[in-house]
Amino acid sequence: MDADTSQLLKQLIAKERTAHLGTLRGGAPMVSMTLYMPEKDLSAFYVHVSSLAWHTQDMKQDGRVALSISETDDRRPDPFTLMRVTIRGEATQMISGPKDAWLARFPEQAINFTLADFSFWQITPRDARFVAGFGRIHNISATELRQPRMPMD
Amino acid sequence: MDADTSQLLKQLIAKERTAHLGTLRGGAPMVSMTLYMPEKDLSAFYVHVSSLAWHTQDMKQDGRVALSISETDDRRPDPFTLMRVTIRGEATQMISGPKDAWLARFPEQAINFTLADFSFWQITPRDARFVAGFGRIHNISATELRQPRMPMD
Repeated sequence: MDADTSQLLKQLIAKERTAHLGTLRGGAPMVSMTLYMPEKDLSAFYVHVSSLAWHTQDMKQDGRVALSISETDDRRPDPFTLMRVTIRGEATQMISGPKDAWLARFPEQAINFTLADFSFWQITPRDARFVAGFGRIHNISATELRQPRMPMD
Repeated sequence: MDADTSQLLKQLIAKERTAHLGTLRGGAPMVSMTLYMPEKDLSAFYVHVSSLAWHTQDMKQDGRVALSISETDDRRPDPFTLMRVTIRGEATQMISGPKDAWLARFPEQAINFTLADFSFWQITPRDARFVAGFGRIHNISATELRQPRMPMD
């Protein structure tokens, strides 16, 4: 992954707010939309989820997950050119979590911190697959993903 | 699911163009963005995919999939209120497929029909889970999903 590609990927992850979280449910695929927050160096991704949600029940059974993030559809003629990345990794429930940073990113989510059944989960990337455009597919290791070659801010 | 909810769901599925397709890859979750087209009565969803793509390889091994579709992020204060639906079902490769309707929906995708490795897959819903807003979660059977209570057009 060259520096330009790395920067494109970081911009995508920084700009978007929602991801589609893949989990195993009864051994079959389940995918559901979640809000996410990345660590600045992309060493981890956080989700704040209810224990009542299916994906949380799933992660308790099996921590293997995939997080799919795509560029917002701007109604361009060909949506197949939208950038997207899949991060595969391991999810673990956190005792506390990045509450202040989460609320800075999602102020309207404050109400969920008053509910006992919400908790943070940390997703540690195992690898990533970045589609930067037609035929521009990059398989990325967790180490490569973490390289702070291009700071986000 | 009441008539209003049913209409909201149909509008969401009709309006959006991209979905996140969950597959099993080596027994673990994989999710990747795809273009999709629904049957008008929601009895099936179609994707047109390359045999080189991971999700296609995955579906050839195990047809169980999940398709996650969410409302485009309009940068509202709380993205957790975006509507989203997950359709779980079985994917099967088609001999031909709805080429004309696909090209009417995605004209720029014509080039993929000149490539031998692309084919249509049909996803037959087993069930769906529709989140119409905070706490407004509906579990929907394939039969309910198909009810043409509110024609889309």
